[in-house]
Amino acid sequence: MGLTIGVDIGGTKIAAGVVDEEGSILDTHTVPTPPTPEGIVDAICAAVSEAGKGHPIEAVGIGAAGYVDDKRATVLFAPNIDWRHEPLKDKVEQRVGLPVVVENDANAAAWGEYRFGAGQGHEDVICITLGTGLGGGIIIGNKLRRGRFGVAAEFGHIRVVPDGLLCGCGSQGCWEQYASGRALVRYARQRAAATPENARALLALGDGTPEGVQGKHVSEAARAGDPVAIDSFRELARWAGAGLADLASLFDPSAFIVGGGVSDEGELVLDPIRKSFRRWLIGGSYRPHAQVLAAQLGNKAGLVGAADLARQG
Amino acid sequence: MGLTIGVDIGGTKIAAGVVDEEGSILDTHTVPTPPTPEGIVDAICAAVSEAGKGHPIEAVGIGAAGYVDDKRATVLFAPNIDWRHEPLKDKVEQRVGLPVVVENDANAAAWGEYRFGAGQGHEDVICITLGTGLGGGIIIGNKLRRGRFGVAAEFGHIRVVPDGLLCGCGSQGCWEQYASGRALVRYARQRAAATPENARALLALGDGTPEGVQGKHVSEAARAGDPVAIDSFRELARWAGAGLADLASLFDPSAFIVGGGVSDEGELVLDPIRKSFRRWLIGGSYRPHAQVLAAQLGNKAGLVGAADLARQG
Amino acid sequence: MGLTIGVDIGGTKIAAGVVDEEGSILDTHTVPTPPTPEGIVDAICAAVSEAGKGHPIEAVGIGAAGYVDDKRATVLFAPNIDWRHEPLKDKVEQRVGLPVVVENDANAAAWGEYRFGAGQGHEDVICITLGTGLGGGIIIGNKLRRGRFGVAAEFGHIRVVPDGLLCGCGSQGCWEQYASGRALVRYARQRAAATPENARALLALGDGTPEGVQGKHVSEAARAGDPVAIDSFRELARWAGAGLADLASLFDPSAFIVGGGVSDEGELVLDPIRKSFRRWLIGGSYRPHAQVLAAQLGNKAGLVGAADLARQG
Amino acid sequence: MGLTIGVDIGGTKIAAGVVDEEGSILDTHTVPTPPTPEGIVDAICAAVSEAGKGHPIEAVGIGAAGYVDDKRATVLFAPNIDWRHEPLKDKVEQRVGLPVVVENDANAAAWGEYRFGAGQGHEDVICITLGTGLGGGIIIGNKLRRGRFGVAAEFGHIRVVPDGLLCGCGSQGCWEQYASGRALVRYARQRAAATPENARALLALGDGTPEGVQGKHVSEAARAGDPVAIDSFRELARWAGAGLADLASLFDPSAFIVGGGVSDEGELVLDPIRKSFRRWLIGGSYRPHAQVLAAQLGNKAGLVGAADLARQG
Repeated sequence: MGLTIGVDIGGTKIAAGVVDEEGSILDTHTVPTPPTPEGIVDAICAAVSEAGKGHPIEAVGIGAAGYVDDKRATVLFAPNIDWRHEPLKDKVEQRVGLPVVVENDANAAAWGEYRFGAGQGHEDVICITLGTGLGGGIIIGNKLRRGRFGVAAEFGHIRVVPDGLLCGCGSQGCWEQYASGRALVRYARQRAAATPENARALLALGDGTPEGVQGKHVSEAARAGDPVAIDSFRELARWAGAGLADLASLFDPSAFIVGGGVSDEGELVLDPIRKSFRRWLIGGSYRPHAQVLAAQLGNKAGLVGAADLARQG
Repeated sequence: MGLTIGVDIGGTKIAAGVVDEEGSILDTHTVPTPPTPEGIVDAICAAVSEAGKGHPIEAVGIGAAGYVDDKRATVLFAPNIDWRHEPLKDKVEQRVGLPVVVENDANAAAWGEYRFGAGQGHEDVICITLGTGLGGGIIIGNKLRRGRFGVAAEFGHIRVVPDGLLCGCGSQGCWEQYASGRALVRYARQRAAATPENARALLALGDGTPEGVQGKHVSEAARAGDPVAIDSFRELARWAGAGLADLASLFDPSAFIVGGGVSDEGELVLDPIRKSFRRWLIGGSYRPHAQVLAAQLGNKAGLVGAADLARQG
Repeated sequence: MGLTIGVDIGGTKIAAGVVDEEGSILDTHTVPTPPTPEGIVDAICAAVSEAGKGHPIEAVGIGAAGYVDDKRATVLFAPNIDWRHEPLKDKVEQRVGLPVVVENDANAAAWGEYRFGAGQGHEDVICITLGTGLGGGIIIGNKLRRGRFGVAAEFGHIRVVPDGLLCGCGSQGCWEQYASGRALVRYARQRAAATPENARALLALGDGTPEGVQGKHVSEAARAGDPVAIDSFRELARWAGAGLADLASLFDPSAFIVGGGVSDEGELVLDPIRKSFRRWLIGGSYRPHAQVLAAQLGNKAGLVGAADLARQG
Repeated sequence: MGLTIGVDIGGTKIAAGVVDEEGSILDTHTVPTPPTPEGIVDAICAAVSEAGKGHPIEAVGIGAAGYVDDKRATVLFAPNIDWRHEPLKDKVEQRVGLPVVVENDANAAAWGEYRFGAGQGHEDVICITLGTGLGGGIIIGNKLRRGRFGVAAEFGHIRVVPDGLLCGCGSQGCWEQYASGRALVRYARQRAAATPENARALLALGDGTPEGVQGKHVSEAARAGDPVAIDSFRELARWAGAGLADLASLFDPSAFIVGGGVSDEGELVLDPIRKSFRRWLIGGSYRPHAQVLAAQLGNKAGLVGAADLARQG
């Protein structure tokens, strides 16, 4: 099989990319994300048609946030778009005239990293995506594991603190409330408000108030040695590493891959995550340890992974 | 392939059973559990030889508590026996002259239930064993999933309470400290000590003191309507169900099977676990729900499962 | 000393009442709460003047939400009004020509109950007010204890869950997030969303959706036997009683008084709070137990208490 | 009034000291702690008689661990000695022929620090004693506050982690399980076991194993820069400071005094406690902050405080 198209649906733009068997992106077309559910379907079709022009495309893979059913056809629920039991596969197939596979976006990103990124050579890999929230994907025995109903690997919503922080999902204490980009900013703001004298560099990067602190400021201040920023990364890593230790108890993979925007900071965040993982790993003296690896494909992982999943049929 | 032997290593006795392709136990031999690690190896071999007499045995499967390596040959660590990197497969093969497979006991029990018990007809099943502690096994795509290094499915040691109760594993807040037979007894004793007037039936079954309360007393008193006993089951179910909800977020199976001694109480414990599972399941309105089933093989699950895993080679 | 005026500043109206030495309210005047900080000062003065007409008033006591300084003169910080270091005593004294005492509203309510309500005859009393949030007051040795800087008894903001729910105060896991009217509604909505089949009576009282559930619906449904409503009260009581047990370890009073809107439900909420208190009280077999009493003055406690504190000078 | 005797009952020895009005110890006599409850009474009397020889003693104050009743006469419950409703005052008065006051030992130590140590000049002081466990004392308005029944200020047993660590008191999640000398050692051992490569200096001070680590090793290693030892003190301080923030919400004192063996380490532990206190103090921008002071009397605080309380009658 030859070329396929992968689609990534972002909050501001939708990207369609032509991907070959080696995972290289040959061509890309992006369109702004429309405000309505139906408009987004239109935009996906338009981006696919445009990107595919002049290429012999054989299939399309779409990565979508939310629950996708086990037939990889219907979006059962999307957190950010008003899709409920949306027959996305059928709609797009009718319009673009190509076989379509719909996949959860974090699953698609996990598959991309497994096939062409940090996971190459591993048969059993767990990926976590530390973006605004926390997503994940499971590869066991060289296959993406989607669960019986298609909604496995919702790592962000395991409960790590009983009676903990409210989550957008309606529950409390979900992991993504403690290990994500949003959590990092909250840690920094809380600490800057309580002890501004330890957050001078951090506060200077924004508008001087704790509320003005953004994610990029935390990274920049941490690199500059700001105590509050460093402590915020340490707190993030405390929760991320402890969660990976739980995932090791459950899945025992040979490698974890940490992706998402937070992981763009590289060792600034990966080194403390590794330490925290070791700290909390159960039975660490008696078992081989999984590696904790940085993702390699950046924000292309989902698009490339979706295209490759479409190729596999 | 025909008959195989499954071995179950208990704290007081070791049982070897001849099992056919339908999971029926044709013959059993049990010996007392010796006090020394090497004595236990001797006893396993003796039980296997004795049970197999007169049967055309083709292989032996041994279920052992602890970490078993990915070759299903070596016990890396056992919690109750002083085995560290114990080459159990080689030792027993040399002595009994049959192919041997070593498997984690909770994995073996999960496989037994999947093949011949409550899990029949399901492709993706998660089993939890509520015994003294909490063990588990993972079946995905009709295969037992052991992890890359053989130590997956250690459900009992995921952290459900940060800074929580000390666990025998050296960590804190492990699930088995909150959902297990031992936890049930602790709940009952604490409540009986604080409010003895609500535990009259429960206390009367033991020696009258909270310390005298045993697991069987809690079940019996709960059936008789003792408020403290009922509340203790409810607390157990609160933690068990919330943990199953986490496992649904991770694995999305079509069924959970609840086994182990605690599950012998049937609906007394299963009904509140189901309610708690529904209470905590994320996205429950938008997804198919896994069934929560009672195990069917009782304490034979491990032996039968180990025998069947040996048959599969 | 004879008559004094107590002032209660509510979200929708400001009430001034003329109170005699027995705690009886002789006359009341209420005005709508203006939207601006300065408007509220005007409204307080107007209500005081109006209520006092024809009475020989000797002093004024004002109960205000927030931090009041140790001189009982300045509101250091108010959560709902934009008062920061507001010299309320001086402003009102200049305008009404009477001595003024400013007091935290929960302190005033505690004093009212101690003097004329459920606390009569006790020397050491702890009051908690379960309203929208959770406030409190401390009486030790027949005196209101305000702390060195005036900001003691902020019971609602002790941390009962590390890394718990966000609180309006900027911290996490504060007691008032788990034991208050707002918490009760959250418990009911979460449960009704997860298991609507157990919340039929509750949902029928609102608009049929979990979001439509209000506090009064939970009480009404609980009285009608709705399982989710009853369970929501039990959860509230679980946290309220455990917190009282902590306060017993700290203060060892002879009585707790539970006031605020939630306590209007009487034994529906007090009985489970008492049970939870007993469950969690440390050393309960070796110590006398404090009583847990329902407040008697309802929403007049603050006004009456403020007036009496002004009388005492 | 002139000289009084203070008695300190330790695990290995009982000390009686003659104390003057300035809190100076003029004479001391110590005897080994006998194994039986009645033997301890004998030993107290003997130590008092011996220490008082040649001094005009007017009264005796005894500091005892556990619950002491509101008449300061009877030990209701002692954790380490088998005293239950022990009429200690009467027994000792009959034997030594002097007025006797019995006081909780942490209360006595708090009073000692308030009168002659770090608390001088403050009217409202909260003392915590970080020894093996965590004890405390409350001074409000220049008086020791014992509660209505004598058992106030049991700070060590407020619940800081729901479903947390088991405590000797029978409850779970008590503060002293997270902030005490015993907790410090647990932190160090857990971390040394998980990451021995970061605990080389620490492990070298004991027998090389995590179990061999003692409290003094953690201090010594922390001063030498051992990462695990430093992190253990930080964890202790995290919990100690957060608890002080809760006490500030409740009591709003002008000063906290931190005593007990752990505080002998001075700024090594006090500096991080202060930082943690600031981090968690509610409303820190709008209120005066209590000072966090090191105790000054060391292990003499209890003896001196008990003697002074006896003088006050």
